[in-house]
Amino acid sequence: MSDIAKKPEIAFIGIGLMGFPMATRLLQAGYPLRAWNRTHEKALPLAEAGAQVEKTLGKAVKGADIVITMLEAGPVVKDVVKAMLPFLSAGMLVIDMSSTKQSEAVEVSQMLSEKQVVFMDAPVSGGVVGASAGTLAIMAGGSQEAFKRAEPLFKAMGRPTLVGPVGSGQIAKLCNQLIVGGTVAIVAEAMLLAQAGGADPAAMRQAIRGGFAESRILELHGQRMLDRDFKPGGQIKSQAKDHANIMAAAADAGLQIPLTAMVAELFNSLLEDYATADQAAALLAVEKINKDKGIRLGTAEDRF
Amino acid sequence: MSDIAKKPEIAFIGIGLMGFPMATRLLQAGYPLRAWNRTHEKALPLAEAGAQVEKTLGKAVKGADIVITMLEAGPVVKDVVKAMLPFLSAGMLVIDMSSTKQSEAVEVSQMLSEKQVVFMDAPVSGGVVGASAGTLAIMAGGSQEAFKRAEPLFKAMGRPTLVGPVGSGQIAKLCNQLIVGGTVAIVAEAMLLAQAGGADPAAMRQAIRGGFAESRILELHGQRMLDRDFKPGGQIKSQAKDHANIMAAAADAGLQIPLTAMVAELFNSLLEDYATADQAAALLAVEKINKDKGIRLGTAEDRF
Repeated sequence: MSDIAKKPEIAFIGIGLMGFPMATRLLQAGYPLRAWNRTHEKALPLAEAGAQVEKTLGKAVKGADIVITMLEAGPVVKDVVKAMLPFLSAGMLVIDMSSTKQSEAVEVSQMLSEKQVVFMDAPVSGGVVGASAGTLAIMAGGSQEAFKRAEPLFKAMGRPTLVGPVGSGQIAKLCNQLIVGGTVAIVAEAMLLAQAGGADPAAMRQAIRGGFAESRILELHGQRMLDRDFKPGGQIKSQAKDHANIMAAAADAGLQIPLTAMVAELFNSLLEDYATADQAAALLAVEKINKDKGIRLGTAEDRF
Repeated sequence: MSDIAKKPEIAFIGIGLMGFPMATRLLQAGYPLRAWNRTHEKALPLAEAGAQVEKTLGKAVKGADIVITMLEAGPVVKDVVKAMLPFLSAGMLVIDMSSTKQSEAVEVSQMLSEKQVVFMDAPVSGGVVGASAGTLAIMAGGSQEAFKRAEPLFKAMGRPTLVGPVGSGQIAKLCNQLIVGGTVAIVAEAMLLAQAGGADPAAMRQAIRGGFAESRILELHGQRMLDRDFKPGGQIKSQAKDHANIMAAAADAGLQIPLTAMVAELFNSLLEDYATADQAAALLAVEKINKDKGIRLGTAEDRF
């Protein structure tokens, strides 16, 4: 009981697909939690898990020890932080767990430092499944001190790692997306080489599983490609947005990453027709390049 | 004893780094085995494991039930098969476990069919470690009947999968190498984005392990990149050769795979200076592109 009494008060801002299960994990871990969501009704079911659902942003954040934001994108985070500024006080910690640009994280941090409020960016990987299970990969950018303060909360939601100063959490998240998107595209090319070269793509995949080619992408997205099952999962439009942010971060850092630049183009080429399809639809982009030859993986119908 | 008596007689041709442990596995499984190697002395230690080491190719293959070749490359396989032709007889099975072009496998198969000798291509993945442990991934191309005949032998050496007709084993192997080389290059770009963007690359990798970005390459080659440990492992010159064969197979099939084409160029750019370095040296190729900005992963010295 005394342990619960010592827990910091949390304000959780953004009770969406990800925010809802993340806030639920914090409540289950015994944190007192006030919640706010732009569409108030969506946050209401969180009251059943013990949250105090507030109608105004000010009421939610005022007097909290730690404010967590989980929002759509960087510009939204900036707007919401601007709106909460009058209600924040020195010594509070704001943790943005949304996926934003590195530069946006740095801007928000500067905005908050004027009120002596500490900031961390801590984007996550693992999706709704990871959020519900409390197994998110949490990539945190900020000071050692802030990380220590946030660590117990993070551990209620997943597996946290401090990767560097403010903004570097976002960079680590982009590295994750770079590898995920790049590997999907590479696996798509391999599947089509098997098909075009007269090997059974399913047998090829089975044969190479567990070796040096093994990856979560070969396991999950490889199977989706074989089934032509493009129901999301992670959507093409998210992957395209991530790759745009990756290329922006690379440009900011003066870094050339030519393979990733090509992967970004590949995902962009799918935006018009397949924005809401799963990332595995990278296969469709490679098939499109080869449509003159009629090369296509298998005979199953596409499912969306 | 009667079981051993029924086992087919094997001629194993090519007792090199891979062939030696593979032949040893067959001997341990109780197969009567005659061995031949161009450099006779290298095959001699196999006698201790029970092999009959022959001085001539003809003596090794004559009267065998199944001939296995494990040689450097396609042209060598063609030469050796040509040389053994006079000593082969109808009904024998020749299995080439070397890595060759698909077209070379088809040529060898045609050469043998004139003598009513059956052929399979069955290249492997897993390296010397996998060969010694009997855990090779074996990608077999040929008829169902030939596969059934070879399967017990294959199982003494690893995990076999029939992937299609003659030549398709080579295609599956190339698909494996396509994914391996492509993933190494993608991971290299991610590592440098972390570095250039101000995140700790080691912490970034730690944070994303176990998620959708997880792969054997991130695990093994990712660590080698952080350590700048480029001692092989799989060598750049092999990867470059594999990628040349991949692009040749794609061209034969009329398939365009633009990402893989770029990966092939990447490995080619390392041939002059780093031919015998590990594949993880893909990192050096991306660093080379960015040398004007002085972007380099960490401060460790390169090890070769």
